Amino acid sequence: MTKAIVLGAGMVGSVMADDLAREPGWTVAVADVGEAALARAVARAERSGGRLQAVRADLSDEEAVGRLVAPYDVVLGALPSTFGYRALRAVIGAGKPCCDISFFPEDALDLDALAREMGVTAVVDCGVAPGMSHLLAGYGASLLDRCDRIEILVGGLPRERRWPFEYKAGFSPYDVIEEYVRPSRIVEDGRVVVREALSEPELVDLPGIGTLESFNTDGLRSLVRTMTVPNMKEKTLRYPGHIELMRVFRETGLFSHEPVAVGPEGVRVRPIDVISALMFPKWTYGPGEEDLTVMRVTVDGEQGGAPTRLSWDLLDHYDRATSATSMSRTTGFPCAIVARMLARGEVPGPGVLPPERLAGVPGLVDRVLAEHEARGVRYATRREALPA
Amino acid sequence: MTKAIVLGAGMVGSVMADDLAREPGWTVAVADVGEAALARAVARAERSGGRLQAVRADLSDEEAVGRLVAPYDVVLGALPSTFGYRALRAVIGAGKPCCDISFFPEDALDLDALAREMGVTAVVDCGVAPGMSHLLAGYGASLLDRCDRIEILVGGLPRERRWPFEYKAGFSPYDVIEEYVRPSRIVEDGRVVVREALSEPELVDLPGIGTLESFNTDGLRSLVRTMTVPNMKEKTLRYPGHIELMRVFRETGLFSHEPVAVGPEGVRVRPIDVISALMFPKWTYGPGEEDLTVMRVTVDGEQGGAPTRLSWDLLDHYDRATSATSMSRTTGFPCAIVARMLARGEVPGPGVLPPERLAGVPGLVDRVLAEHEARGVRYATRREALPA
Repeated sequence: MTKAIVLGAGMVGSVMADDLAREPGWTVAVADVGEAALARAVARAERSGGRLQAVRADLSDEEAVGRLVAPYDVVLGALPSTFGYRALRAVIGAGKPCCDISFFPEDALDLDALAREMGVTAVVDCGVAPGMSHLLAGYGASLLDRCDRIEILVGGLPRERRWPFEYKAGFSPYDVIEEYVRPSRIVEDGRVVVREALSEPELVDLPGIGTLESFNTDGLRSLVRTMTVPNMKEKTLRYPGHIELMRVFRETGLFSHEPVAVGPEGVRVRPIDVISALMFPKWTYGPGEEDLTVMRVTVDGEQGGAPTRLSWDLLDHYDRATSATSMSRTTGFPCAIVARMLARGEVPGPGVLPPERLAGVPGLVDRVLAEHEARGVRYATRREALPA
Repeated sequence: MTKAIVLGAGMVGSVMADDLAREPGWTVAVADVGEAALARAVARAERSGGRLQAVRADLSDEEAVGRLVAPYDVVLGALPSTFGYRALRAVIGAGKPCCDISFFPEDALDLDALAREMGVTAVVDCGVAPGMSHLLAGYGASLLDRCDRIEILVGGLPRERRWPFEYKAGFSPYDVIEEYVRPSRIVEDGRVVVREALSEPELVDLPGIGTLESFNTDGLRSLVRTMTVPNMKEKTLRYPGHIELMRVFRETGLFSHEPVAVGPEGVRVRPIDVISALMFPKWTYGPGEEDLTVMRVTVDGEQGGAPTRLSWDLLDHYDRATSATSMSRTTGFPCAIVARMLARGEVPGPGVLPPERLAGVPGLVDRVLAEHEARGVRYATRREALPA
């Protein structure tokens, strides 16, 4: 019997817990501070015939997390970016193998020494992007004799395009705005260069969806340190026009965290708080509102002396049968799949491993892709000859 | 000797005062609550060889205005929209012929009875638009046997187009936003209909400036009551793209006067105050920054049995010689020109007269246009046959 616990009963956490609860021989708990979120997660698992144990806990309390995970064999993290890092540190400190999708700003590799000391393996950034993006980038590079270029294009979008934003946030809208503001690190000719957020917009045609617009985002994360490929970038995808609006909002100062004095009384407010209050309700998916996830990972290089391009295309939609958003499925499944491998001891270690570090494990990527396919999420693989 | 006083020493008031101060046989005063504005107005007149008497006064105090104007023969009003109406009422109540460009929300025609009682003529809305727009619309209609349609297109724009707004406000930016929010009354098939502000955008090519975009604004004002033309509308002109941004801002709620709770403490602020604090500094003309004014008044109908179009085109630029903005010149000159006619008893009355009521005075429009031409502001007149 394997005992697992999922930290966080939000959209993604509940999909992970549901997925694992159906695994024969597993008992699965889900922890959250919110009763309502826990109830929704339990109900989701019950609808698909699984059982979940709900644990109410304040996961922003690092010591509490350490105590909470003690009885479990494997831990999955799906927490807000604000306290995901601290929770992960507690889990590693408790000596538990773990797998995480909390998109926190801290560098998870800083916990590598602790993980080695405790003898545990922690797979971090293990969602769709970062996650499958990095696994496939690392895998592609490992298949080539020489890798020259990695490009990740990724976006989570509403299926219906509604004026004016043609966008809804599949995760925290504050984190979305952060992507629109934080300069993005990309690798060009072997050097890390920094580009303005929302810069270098390009139109991209993608089968099944039409024309989208890509822009630089700071999504390479661990790849900047783990891979020595001379050209690497991540760009986010939106319906055309959204980027320009966000550039205007940013230029106007609406994303600023600096308080300004407003009105006759000179009340001081942060513009980001004002635009959040006004815009985020419009960016929230209503019940049953359908989303989609689109990603293309392209790896260029040479194989057997021939210029070669390897690519993986994902286009996933909201699942009407389970009412699970595409973003929660494509983010939660990689983590749930890798958690099983961790429990079976199939993942190397110890240490903190971003997904690209798993790419060299024989057969692992094929199995991850097959497990996705079994869940209705298909990564279309392609190999092309490039002009010499 | 004619004694005139200009109420308001702002951009437009100072241009009016400067213009009148050069008139032989006139002594001119300018009143304002602001010392700095008064000093600028006096300096402007001195640069062009005129002399102005500066009077410090609180013009939002209706009784004070009544006492202030007592010694003068003619009064010109160039006040903020918030207290322009009250000042005008005081001037009429004091029995002074007057001419006004304060763009107040109240209906000036409500003061008609008072003006008749006092035996004075008050020409209101006597700037460029409303102002020359209405004079030319009324004049055009009077030249035709039957008038079917009046269209006024007008805009004040920065000469340099700068991303993202390609706009600066030649007058109060609050009044500009008001134009983007207030539903616009237009006349269609003989009925007053109300259209959403910023609606019905159309691209218009204008000689000397290129392509602009027009949208409905609530600028007909008195024309709705004074003219029985079956189709009348006013549209404002902007560089293409501005309207869409403003529609997005409005849709986002940024122009709302309803307070919202923002930030962790739930501070209540009006979004309009926030966007004003952020955006209006970007909308302000810096010293020497050049503007332009563009207007086209089109009057369609029948003359001698033939379908005929009469039109007047204005394209005026910032005056480098006097550092006067085009908006202040094109707005101030009509008022200064009509003030002279008032002093000479050439304007009918008594009563409150919007400019279209002057259109029938023989020779008046030709003289007004000639006086503009003498100041370097040219209205290009055109007569075309329309297809039957």
